[in-house]
Amino acid sequence: MPPALDHFADRLSAAVERAGTPLCVGLDPRLDRLPDGLVAGHLEKHPGEPLRGAAEAIFEFCSRVLETVSGEVGVIKLQNAYFETVGPHGLDVFCRLIRRVRELGLIAISDSKRGDIGTSSAAYATAHLGNVIVGGDEVEVIGADAVTVNPYFGIDGVEPFVREAVENGRGIFVLVKTSNPSGVEVQDLSSGSRKVYEEVAGHVWDWARDHLGRCGYSAVGAVVGATYPTQLAELRREMPGAIFLVPGFGAQGGRAEDVRQAFDEEGRGAIINSSRGIIFAYRQPRHRGLPPERFEEAVLAATRSAKEQIAAALS
Amino acid sequence: MPPALDHFADRLSAAVERAGTPLCVGLDPRLDRLPDGLVAGHLEKHPGEPLRGAAEAIFEFCSRVLETVSGEVGVIKLQNAYFETVGPHGLDVFCRLIRRVRELGLIAISDSKRGDIGTSSAAYATAHLGNVIVGGDEVEVIGADAVTVNPYFGIDGVEPFVREAVENGRGIFVLVKTSNPSGVEVQDLSSGSRKVYEEVAGHVWDWARDHLGRCGYSAVGAVVGATYPTQLAELRREMPGAIFLVPGFGAQGGRAEDVRQAFDEEGRGAIINSSRGIIFAYRQPRHRGLPPERFEEAVLAATRSAKEQIAAALS
Repeated sequence: MPPALDHFADRLSAAVERAGTPLCVGLDPRLDRLPDGLVAGHLEKHPGEPLRGAAEAIFEFCSRVLETVSGEVGVIKLQNAYFETVGPHGLDVFCRLIRRVRELGLIAISDSKRGDIGTSSAAYATAHLGNVIVGGDEVEVIGADAVTVNPYFGIDGVEPFVREAVENGRGIFVLVKTSNPSGVEVQDLSSGSRKVYEEVAGHVWDWARDHLGRCGYSAVGAVVGATYPTQLAELRREMPGAIFLVPGFGAQGGRAEDVRQAFDEEGRGAIINSSRGIIFAYRQPRHRGLPPERFEEAVLAATRSAKEQIAAALS
Repeated sequence: MPPALDHFADRLSAAVERAGTPLCVGLDPRLDRLPDGLVAGHLEKHPGEPLRGAAEAIFEFCSRVLETVSGEVGVIKLQNAYFETVGPHGLDVFCRLIRRVRELGLIAISDSKRGDIGTSSAAYATAHLGNVIVGGDEVEVIGADAVTVNPYFGIDGVEPFVREAVENGRGIFVLVKTSNPSGVEVQDLSSGSRKVYEEVAGHVWDWARDHLGRCGYSAVGAVVGATYPTQLAELRREMPGAIFLVPGFGAQGGRAEDVRQAFDEEGRGAIINSSRGIIFAYRQPRHRGLPPERFEEAVLAATRSAKEQIAAALS
């Protein structure tokens, strides 16, 4: 049996404690938001290979964000969509960044919202959290600490992710209540006295309760948007040992006082993600005059400001 | 305005008509099911790069299936999970195979079940169906004819896919009722007198009805499993102009007479997918004695048999 500290929830808790904040920085590297000169430079280095140049620009941008925030936070979330949008080179960069996050001693979340049925779901789980067997050898593929999972397929879509996570000391975050306005069209349909997201929360807690670490939290967590504070409080009670990954803080409108409901009485059990508000802070009016090539200064300021807001709300 | 024949549904209908069958062959290249010698050969060619060797083995296997069935069917579905499970080289092979499918004049469906919110969903839509803008130029990424989409996020998760599809003469298939047993845990929750999948079907038809081609079908279709024949009939009425992508035929237990309900009265409006039952037919007892390196013979026999079963059920 592996030592208990290898449990995902324990490793995540330790990373949050070391950093002194539950803030998670989200890498959402939208190509059209990167500093112009940075993209152009990489395109010149890879003539005739625009997607490779774009991917390397994303790599440089994210690496510089990463080095800037690595002493500030314990958790990094990478939004897979912005990497996939530049093709195979993008996935290569996604993998390289996840390795770098882990080398820095931080927790890397692959925000990929994967999900399928049976063996297809198992293949995704292996890709993100496990090792594929090739010619008799086990080979790590993406190597993330955790991945986000879509529950529309029910248990046999999620179970392969749970199994892969538990076997490898990794974690999953199942989408329960997403931060976008139209999520209600499916998630808030009423099923008798309960809504769909509450039913999903019930399943998540069923899957989670068997996989608790020393810290009292599970390798199976939930995504619950900051933009729904009332539901956050209710879901906190519904899934007492599930770590919440809370998107929607900052640019999407979720406020620090809204996310307080995601935590337990000791201020544990949740991580709060901010992406655009941090990584693209250099584009905000308050940083007018900052040359784009010095975007790290804005990243650092925005990270510290977000940490302070969350700390104030939790105190 | 592009010519009307560029509409996805018209192109799909033409491909089905040319092939004389609504059968779609699914490429689900599970690494541990490929002929042993085939994988070993590619691993030898790429020493120290096991994921590259594995990806090239998948490429050879799928290419040979493709050449075998290209005169038999009009539509090919590629299950992204088995490509992602070998990392960036896998995505590269996924893109190369999609290009090959289109060169052969067939329709390529990226079965990737993507979905997210807002600009992240848009990034996925661009990756699978559109062109990313790099340094002022438009560059195609994956270049599929259609992609499967997960509806858990509601309209603002799906709408970017609809927009990208319509702009580029491509299509989407939204998950409504999946073929796996546990899909019911979420999809069959009752919402008043209707179930969740029926509500989703209502949304799909709302998104679909504005984007009809000459053939009377839409660029927005639905995934409805062959394993639920009663619901197939009901959903056919609920979404009259949505093309159904019907998985679960063959290996998963769906029978030819079950899938008849997916079609309209003229036998149009659905494509029936079979993956494992065709591509791994060489492993079936009936092909005992066939050397694995001649797997194409079993693929061809299984394809023709599936076509006959579907034709008999439709006649």
